[in-house]
Amino acid sequence: MRLRNVPHAKETINNNPHYVIPEPKDHRGSWQQIFEKNQPLHIEVGMGRGRFLYGMAQANPQINYLGIEKMDSVLINALERLMKNPLPNLRLVRVDAEQLDEMFARGEVDLVYLNFSDPWPKKKHAKRRLTHENFLKQYETITDFGAIHFKTDNRSLFEYSLMSMANYGMKYDFMSLDLHNSEYEGNIMTEYEARFSKKGHPIYRLEAHFVNQVQICQTMLCEEE
Amino acid sequence: MRLRNVPHAKETINNNPHYVIPEPKDHRGSWQQIFEKNQPLHIEVGMGRGRFLYGMAQANPQINYLGIEKMDSVLINALERLMKNPLPNLRLVRVDAEQLDEMFARGEVDLVYLNFSDPWPKKKHAKRRLTHENFLKQYETITDFGAIHFKTDNRSLFEYSLMSMANYGMKYDFMSLDLHNSEYEGNIMTEYEARFSKKGHPIYRLEAHFVNQVQICQTMLCEEE
Repeated sequence: MRLRNVPHAKETINNNPHYVIPEPKDHRGSWQQIFEKNQPLHIEVGMGRGRFLYGMAQANPQINYLGIEKMDSVLINALERLMKNPLPNLRLVRVDAEQLDEMFARGEVDLVYLNFSDPWPKKKHAKRRLTHENFLKQYETITDFGAIHFKTDNRSLFEYSLMSMANYGMKYDFMSLDLHNSEYEGNIMTEYEARFSKKGHPIYRLEAHFVNQVQICQTMLCEEE
Repeated sequence: MRLRNVPHAKETINNNPHYVIPEPKDHRGSWQQIFEKNQPLHIEVGMGRGRFLYGMAQANPQINYLGIEKMDSVLINALERLMKNPLPNLRLVRVDAEQLDEMFARGEVDLVYLNFSDPWPKKKHAKRRLTHENFLKQYETITDFGAIHFKTDNRSLFEYSLMSMANYGMKYDFMSLDLHNSEYEGNIMTEYEARFSKKGHPIYRLEAHFVNQVQICQTMLCEEE
């Protein structure tokens, strides 16, 4: 992603704690309190400029959305959009994805979105990919065996992620290897998606959920006996 | 697949029991006896004209191959190739894929190949797809938690299969969403693949293996205690 140089980004972010929640770890277990309504919480990890999540929040007032982005120069775009047209069910945090389980209590999140995440193409950087086992563990905990909705145009990242999630034991609910030429309806595009899908590259999309392996095992072994 | 009209196919097949093994169920548990050497057995379900399996058998004399095809008019091509240039480690059977577990004892097969299987696009025909749960169950048994290597150019079939196999609990070992533009080496093309990949459609490929869930559960629950 090409980054705008936004000199006052940090300042603007700090001056708007109503939209960009400071000290996210202090809200662990009580995220519902920052929203007007107590309703399901969906998060996007690596929100970027926020077009997708803003669109989702507009379309689904019955859901609370929290956008997670670590870079000021990108987050500022989402903030400016929200300041211009406020929504009661969308808030932002500036934080690194590696601290998710310090930010959320078990089961506090209902759904995790990953959109066009950094592919980290080098093998030695595999641990930084947001679909690496270490991240999956965090999503599993904070959603308490919930779901991930993931899309990307990066073939290698999608191949890697399909393997990573299957090998983690996740189950697949929806799959498209060419989202824009599929029957899927209601797709809300990210900035990146809108720009690059015009080049004819397929967009890949996966919905997957975690399963409680221990519970399954207990059931299975009881049946065996 | 466009089918040649081969009037003498059935006759030629019946006259060559050395290559097209009659009464496959009689060989359950003793397939090694029809080959010169006792070595791993790989099968292709829906072999078609046999170019892939012939190439594999040529390249890997240390493996026995059995090609499974129900249609005379297609099988005849594989037979004619084998009659012209015999190989000791390739044999054929004319049988329906639904009878696999009547044909093989548990663990008698080491690896299952599925190449460009019929996509059966209508939902009501999903059970006929060779990656449907019912077929996976058979592969699991005859390979005793072995592996499947699958390729296709059919996007819907691949999407379906990725979901079906992950949801069955299989683990993924290799994945390509564009085989001919990947680092994968040693690909042997099927007739169909050679013809249709020229049109620029991606070829999808997956290697996956079964896991013994009961064994995993026993280990997991012991660790829990």
